[in-house]
Amino acid sequence: MITRAELQLLRSLRDKKHREELGLYAVEGEKIVAELLAAGHPFEKIYGTGAWTGRKTHEIGEPEMERASHFPTPSTVLAVGRIRREALEPGELDRGLTLALDGVQDPGNVGTMLRIADWFGLDRVLLSPECADLHSQKVIRASMGSFARVRTIVTALGAALEGTRAPVIGCALEGRDVHGIAGIADAVIVIGSEGGGLSEDVRRRLAYSVTIPRRGGAESLNAAVAAAIVCDNLRRGAR
Amino acid sequence: MITRAELQLLRSLRDKKHREELGLYAVEGEKIVAELLAAGHPFEKIYGTGAWTGRKTHEIGEPEMERASHFPTPSTVLAVGRIRREALEPGELDRGLTLALDGVQDPGNVGTMLRIADWFGLDRVLLSPECADLHSQKVIRASMGSFARVRTIVTALGAALEGTRAPVIGCALEGRDVHGIAGIADAVIVIGSEGGGLSEDVRRRLAYSVTIPRRGGAESLNAAVAAAIVCDNLRRGAR
Repeated sequence: MITRAELQLLRSLRDKKHREELGLYAVEGEKIVAELLAAGHPFEKIYGTGAWTGRKTHEIGEPEMERASHFPTPSTVLAVGRIRREALEPGELDRGLTLALDGVQDPGNVGTMLRIADWFGLDRVLLSPECADLHSQKVIRASMGSFARVRTIVTALGAALEGTRAPVIGCALEGRDVHGIAGIADAVIVIGSEGGGLSEDVRRRLAYSVTIPRRGGAESLNAAVAAAIVCDNLRRGAR
Repeated sequence: MITRAELQLLRSLRDKKHREELGLYAVEGEKIVAELLAAGHPFEKIYGTGAWTGRKTHEIGEPEMERASHFPTPSTVLAVGRIRREALEPGELDRGLTLALDGVQDPGNVGTMLRIADWFGLDRVLLSPECADLHSQKVIRASMGSFARVRTIVTALGAALEGTRAPVIGCALEGRDVHGIAGIADAVIVIGSEGGGLSEDVRRRLAYSVTIPRRGGAESLNAAVAAAIVCDNLRRGAR
């Protein structure tokens, strides 16, 4: 059983505004919920229909799931998590590899970059407040479960990068050849927005920019694709 | 002016079946049509409303555009192109770099891989018939204009790869370190489907597979992301 008010609350989580007010977010879909559970991700509540064979805290009927779901064709499970805002520790960016997203607005790109950061074992991902909302279902789904494994911090990048001892490296259409960054152990790599590139606040704090050598006619690469190539180069030859 | 029959024809181009029967495809959107025109792409007809300032062959009203469009919110331009099926020349795969897509079904991934092939100046892209349709609007849009610049051939990969003298290299979760392929000038790189990997027909014809070294917890990388990393490695140190 589920109350009318609870159904309304679940539905309301489709909006960022309500997610932030309530401090909660929703994830639907058998595959992604199973992946997050397998990664040990904590959920507050897991609503499942009779057809959902995974862990659940509340069994609900299909008509109720249809009313709770954010999608026209609901799945058999809807999990609710509590938003935990991580904060940077002092000097944290000086150590290890950080991927910083500067206004990346496409949720598919943000999720894909969490997956990339996870694959390459980066230490953390920073997201500027202008990025797609980390707790939107599109981001979480595109991350393919990496949402549960990657340390993420939403923060204004200008202030966060101030005084960082590790080099802050921008990804841009002009700069040093990315093939020269192999094996750097401590760095912050910044990826700009799909349309506008890096913000002025970030550009002022760059040690340098790197670029991916181009051979053909395309004007740019997708932001997530560029991030992946930079990560592969960073990890090259590193131990 | 535009006839009722013409409107119906334009609308019908949203379906692959009709595109193939008629040998035509449609592209909508100011940005993508402008990019394709800038790349010299030939269109049969370009329908534009009064607000479309680019080249057009037919001026139509907004209500007509609304009826012709494949989208709920139409743009100011709809261009129609003729489908040209390219065929492989004998021995063509022996020379240069080929990206072969083996059942890549997500149109965003197919379009992004055309953009990647264009950026890295590959010689051609092969698509197995199971791939997302090259002439769908999603593929063309995701290619960001690279659709006009990249030589594409739709063909059964098993037969196409038979007897190829250039090494056929699969991209897989296990294989040689991708960092070892720098500077190879002639090769066919095969990317498998998002869910199923490489088909049996392709696997039988592989010289070897390469893999992208993993450091963290993600189970896989997105297909387009993997393709980009392989291309960057191939182009590394090449002249």
